[in-house]
Amino acid sequence: MRTHFCGLIDESLVGQTVTLCGWADVARDLGGLCFIDLRDHEGIVQIVAEPSDAPGNGAVLATAARVGYEDCLRVTGRVRRRQSVNAKIRTGQVEVVATAIEVLNKAEPLPFHAHENAGEDIRLKYRYLDLRTPKMQRMLRTRIRLVQALRRWLDARGFQDIETPILTKATPEGARDFLVPARMHPGEFYALPQSPQLFKQILMVAGFDRYYQIARCFRDEALRADRQLEFTQLDMEFAWVDEQIVQDTTEALIRDVFREVMGVELADPFPRMTWAEAMRRYGSDKPDLRIALELVDVADLVKDCGFKVFADWASAEGGRVAALRIPGGAALSRKQIDEYAAHAAKFGSKGLAYAKLDEAGAVNSPIAKFFDEAAFAALLQATGAGKGDLVFFGAGPYRTVSDFMGAVRLKAGKDFGLVGAGWKPLWVTDFPMFEWDEEEQRYVALHHPFTAPAVDDEADLRANAATAVSRGYDMVLNGNEIGGGSIRIHRSAMQSAVFELLGIGAEEARAKFGFLLDALKYGAPPHGGIAFGIDRIAALMAGTDSIRDVIAFPKTTSAQCLLTDAPSPIPDPQLAEVHVAVRKTPESENPGSR
Amino acid sequence: MRTHFCGLIDESLVGQTVTLCGWADVARDLGGLCFIDLRDHEGIVQIVAEPSDAPGNGAVLATAARVGYEDCLRVTGRVRRRQSVNAKIRTGQVEVVATAIEVLNKAEPLPFHAHENAGEDIRLKYRYLDLRTPKMQRMLRTRIRLVQALRRWLDARGFQDIETPILTKATPEGARDFLVPARMHPGEFYALPQSPQLFKQILMVAGFDRYYQIARCFRDEALRADRQLEFTQLDMEFAWVDEQIVQDTTEALIRDVFREVMGVELADPFPRMTWAEAMRRYGSDKPDLRIALELVDVADLVKDCGFKVFADWASAEGGRVAALRIPGGAALSRKQIDEYAAHAAKFGSKGLAYAKLDEAGAVNSPIAKFFDEAAFAALLQATGAGKGDLVFFGAGPYRTVSDFMGAVRLKAGKDFGLVGAGWKPLWVTDFPMFEWDEEEQRYVALHHPFTAPAVDDEADLRANAATAVSRGYDMVLNGNEIGGGSIRIHRSAMQSAVFELLGIGAEEARAKFGFLLDALKYGAPPHGGIAFGIDRIAALMAGTDSIRDVIAFPKTTSAQCLLTDAPSPIPDPQLAEVHVAVRKTPESENPGSR
Repeated sequence: MRTHFCGLIDESLVGQTVTLCGWADVARDLGGLCFIDLRDHEGIVQIVAEPSDAPGNGAVLATAARVGYEDCLRVTGRVRRRQSVNAKIRTGQVEVVATAIEVLNKAEPLPFHAHENAGEDIRLKYRYLDLRTPKMQRMLRTRIRLVQALRRWLDARGFQDIETPILTKATPEGARDFLVPARMHPGEFYALPQSPQLFKQILMVAGFDRYYQIARCFRDEALRADRQLEFTQLDMEFAWVDEQIVQDTTEALIRDVFREVMGVELADPFPRMTWAEAMRRYGSDKPDLRIALELVDVADLVKDCGFKVFADWASAEGGRVAALRIPGGAALSRKQIDEYAAHAAKFGSKGLAYAKLDEAGAVNSPIAKFFDEAAFAALLQATGAGKGDLVFFGAGPYRTVSDFMGAVRLKAGKDFGLVGAGWKPLWVTDFPMFEWDEEEQRYVALHHPFTAPAVDDEADLRANAATAVSRGYDMVLNGNEIGGGSIRIHRSAMQSAVFELLGIGAEEARAKFGFLLDALKYGAPPHGGIAFGIDRIAALMAGTDSIRDVIAFPKTTSAQCLLTDAPSPIPDPQLAEVHVAVRKTPESENPGSR
Repeated sequence: MRTHFCGLIDESLVGQTVTLCGWADVARDLGGLCFIDLRDHEGIVQIVAEPSDAPGNGAVLATAARVGYEDCLRVTGRVRRRQSVNAKIRTGQVEVVATAIEVLNKAEPLPFHAHENAGEDIRLKYRYLDLRTPKMQRMLRTRIRLVQALRRWLDARGFQDIETPILTKATPEGARDFLVPARMHPGEFYALPQSPQLFKQILMVAGFDRYYQIARCFRDEALRADRQLEFTQLDMEFAWVDEQIVQDTTEALIRDVFREVMGVELADPFPRMTWAEAMRRYGSDKPDLRIALELVDVADLVKDCGFKVFADWASAEGGRVAALRIPGGAALSRKQIDEYAAHAAKFGSKGLAYAKLDEAGAVNSPIAKFFDEAAFAALLQATGAGKGDLVFFGAGPYRTVSDFMGAVRLKAGKDFGLVGAGWKPLWVTDFPMFEWDEEEQRYVALHHPFTAPAVDDEADLRANAATAVSRGYDMVLNGNEIGGGSIRIHRSAMQSAVFELLGIGAEEARAKFGFLLDALKYGAPPHGGIAFGIDRIAALMAGTDSIRDVIAFPKTTSAQCLLTDAPSPIPDPQLAEVHVAVRKTPESENPGSR
C-alpha cells in the first residue's frame, strides 16, 4: 500500500518514485498549485500538485484542491529537492510531486483542531484525534520505550514474566476493592487485584526464583491527577535474597533504563537514607533532593524562650521545633507569607512563625520579642540565615511538623526556582514497622502486612512493636516514590504475629490469608521484591505532570471514560443473570441529576 | 546467599566450595551418612553429609539427619566427583560434600507428594507445591519463552506495545460481559473487555500504525477444558494494510517463534484454504491436516437410490450427502459403530449409515439393499474404500452434515492412530459474512460486526448479504484455531450498513458504538489485524491438552480459584458502597446447597 514512510523521505530518494499513506496535516490551494503536508507516525513531508502535461494530471490537481484537514490519503509521486528548504522538519530538504492522489477516507470537519489548545474533556472524548498530535505521540512512545527497555533488561537476566489473575479474591490491602459478581456462584464476588502481592509471593514458594510482570492493578479510590482506577506497575519478586540484592539489582535496572531511554546517567550507587533521616532533614519520606534546602532542628535553642508554643514542644516527648531558611525569602510580602501559612495548614500546621533578615541585616519577626536579642541571633545563625533571607519555624508533634515543614520546603523550592536540574534518585530505608492509628486505636502497617520486621523473632517483635523497623525500602526520584518494596515474612508464625499486632484475629486471618499462611508452612524460601509505578515513571520521562498523558485511554478524575462513555447503566435482566440489583439510593432515584 | 544454582553444578567446579539454596527433594539417612537431593529452578544436585574430623561436622550430620521433604536449605560444601554416576540428571557426575547446612524454613508434612499422581483439585488448592514439580515448571516456562519470543520479534519490527483499559464499557461481542459496579456513579457499571477490539481500531485511527498487546480478555461463559473466565491473547492491529500484509507478517511471526521456542520448521508459506473448501473436504473451519482422511461428496451417486433420506438430501437445495472412508475400519464392532453414531449425534446427526468391506471384499451394509449392486459398488469406489475398510455416510443440511462428518473424521483419526506427527498450519479465508439465525430470525456475524465484507459498497452488501464473503481469516494449527482476524470496516457508512443488517438499530448502534462510528468519520485509515490465543498456543507447545497447565493460577471448570477460594461472599455494607445488593434467588436462599 505504501513504499516509504512520510517522515523518512530524504535527499537519498531524490528522483525516485514513492507511494505514501497518511493524513493531510495542512492543505493549501494556491490557485492551480496545491501543497499538502502529509503526516504519518514518522513525521511530515510536503506534497505538491502542480500543473503539467502528464496524462491524468488534471485529476490529481482536482483531487488535491478538495483535500481537507485529516483526510486519509495515498499519494504517489517523485521526490525532488525543495526550492525553499524548511529546516524545522526532518524532510525539509525535499518534496514529493504527486502523480496520483487517492482519498482513502474523507474526514468530516473536526470537533477541534490539533493545533489549537483544546480543553481536556473534548480531547478525551475524541482521544483518537488528540493522540494523532506529535506531542501525544511522543509521550506515549516514551512509555512504550520505557516498558520495552525494562522487559529487555529483565528477560536478559532470567526474570520470568508470569501472569497472575485479574479475577481474584477480595483481600483488602488498604484501598477499596472493585467487585465482580460471579454468575456461577450466586451472591459471591470476585475482586480485581490491588496488586499481585500474594500471587508473587506464592510464585516464590512455587520455585520460580525470579519473577516480574507488567501488571495491571486496581484501586477504587478518589482520583487525583496522579491516580487512575487502574494503573500499571512493574512487579518483581526474588527468592533466596536479602534487601541488598533486591536494591542493587533494581537500582541497576533503573539506571540502565534511564540511560537507554533518556540518555541520562543516574548516581551510582543511589544515595541511601533512613526514613528517620529523611523526615528529619526533608520532612518527607520521599525527599526531592534537587532542592538544596534542609530543615534544622532548633529545640535546644528555643526550649527556654518566652514563646510558649516553641518552649512546650521543644521539651515535649514526641515534639519537634524545626526551622527552614529560604534564601532570598525576605522579598516575600505579608500576603505571600500568609499563603505559605495556609499551605502549611493543609498539612496540619496550626501556625507558621517566621523571621526576615533585610538587606541591611535587620531582623523583622513577630516572635523576636519572645527572645533576648543574642538568643534570637543564635537561633537565626543555626539556620544559616543571612541578609535577604527568611526563616520559617514550625512547632508541634514530630510527624506533623515534619509534614508541613516538608510541604513548605517544596513550595519554597518551586517558588524561588531552587529546584535543581537533573535526576536525583535515592533509597529510603528502615521504615517504622507500624504506625499507631489514634482513631481506630490499633497499629496499621506502614508498608503492608507481609513486610518482614527487622527483628530476631516473634517475641522480639511483640515486645518492641512501637519502635520496630521494617525491612521495607522505597526508591525515590525527584520527590516521587517510583518504587516500593520489602523483604517479606517467609515463616508462618511471624506472619501470624504481625496479623495479630494489626488487630487481624486468627479467624479473619485464616479466612482472608489462609492460603498464604499455609504456603509459608510448606518450605517458603526467604524472599522479597519491589513494585515500580510505570505510569509515574513514564510521566517523569515524558516531562508531564499528568499520568493521563502517558495512558492511551485514561479516565477522568470523576472516573469516566469520555471516549466510550463508561461506566453506563445495565438493563436489569442482565444484572439478574449475575444475581445483583441496583440499590435505591437518594442519588440513584433521580437519574436526571447526573 | 548462594554462589551457584543446584542444577548447574558440573565437573568444572570439582574441588571448589559452593553455597546452594533449594528444597530437599529427597533425603536419605543411611545411619551416619546422609544423602539429600537439593532442588532449585535449574535442577537437582546430590548433597552428602558424611563423618569427618572437620570441626562442626557433628552438627552438619545432625542437621542432615533431620531434613524432611521440601525443607528450605542453604548448603555450603565442596564439589567432588561421584563414585556412582547418575546419568539421569545433568549434575549426575558430581556431588557436594556439605560443610554447613542451614534450615532456612522447615516444611510441615505435605498434603500430597509431588511424585504421586494427586487429583487436580488438591493440586490446584496447593498450587505452589504442584508448580514446584519439574513437569509444571517446564510447561510454565514454555509459555514464558513463547511470550518472550513473540515480544522480541514484534519489538524488533516497530510494533507498539500499548495498554488498553480493563475497566471499560459493556459492548456485547457475543459472550456475556463481566460487570463491575461503579462506586462514583450509582447504578452504573464498568465491564471487563472481551477483547481490546475497539480500542485497537481506535489506536489505528489515532496514528499508531502498528500495535500489539499481550492482552487479558474476559468472557463469562461456561468453562470447558480449553476455556477460562480470563484468557490471554496476542492482540495485533495494522494501519494502511490489506489482508496479504497481515497474513504474511503474522505467518512469519509464528514460523519464527516456533523455530526459536520449539526448534521446528513450519511450512513456508502456510497452505491457504477457503472456508467453503475446508467445510467440503474436512467438515470443519479448523481442519486438522495431520489426519489424511477427507470427506467425499456423493450426492450424484445416491440421488436416484432407494434410500429416501439419501435421495431426498442429494436433491434438496442446501442438502449434502457425504462419505468418509476409514482405512481398516472394517474391524469396528457393532458396538463401536454405535459409538460413532452417538458421537455424530452430538453434532446434529440423525443417523450414521455405514458400509464395511471385509478382507475378502464382501460388503456388509444395512443400506446396501437400497441400491442395485453396481451402483453401490460405484458408490464405495468413489470413496476410495478397499478391503478391510469402512465407509460412513451422512445426509442432511449442508452445514450439519459437514459438522458431524467432520467430528467423525477427528474421532476416527484418533481411534485409528491416523494423526500424523508434526505441525500442520494453514490459513482459512473467505468466511461467509453472515449466518442466518433461524431462532432469532436475523443475521449474525460469523467473525464480529467490525469485519469488512469483500464487496464494493453498501448497496452491493445489502443486495447480496446472504452470500457475501468477509475479509476475515483464521490461522489454524493441528485442528486448533490459534488466531483469528480480519480487515476491518474503516468507513462509517459501511459500518452502519453492517449494524443494520445485523438488526442493530441506529439508536442502539449510536449508544453502544457511537464512538467507533465517529472515529471512522475523522480520517480512519484502512486497517486490519488479528488475535492469537496465547493459552492455546502455549498448551500446544507444552504438549498438554489442558490450558490450565500453562496458566499459573487457573480457575476450575466451576469458575473457582481453589488456592484463594475466589469468588467469595462480600459483607453487605461493602456492597452498599458500590450501590448494589445481592438478589434473593432460589439458589442463594439455601447457602448450604453449595
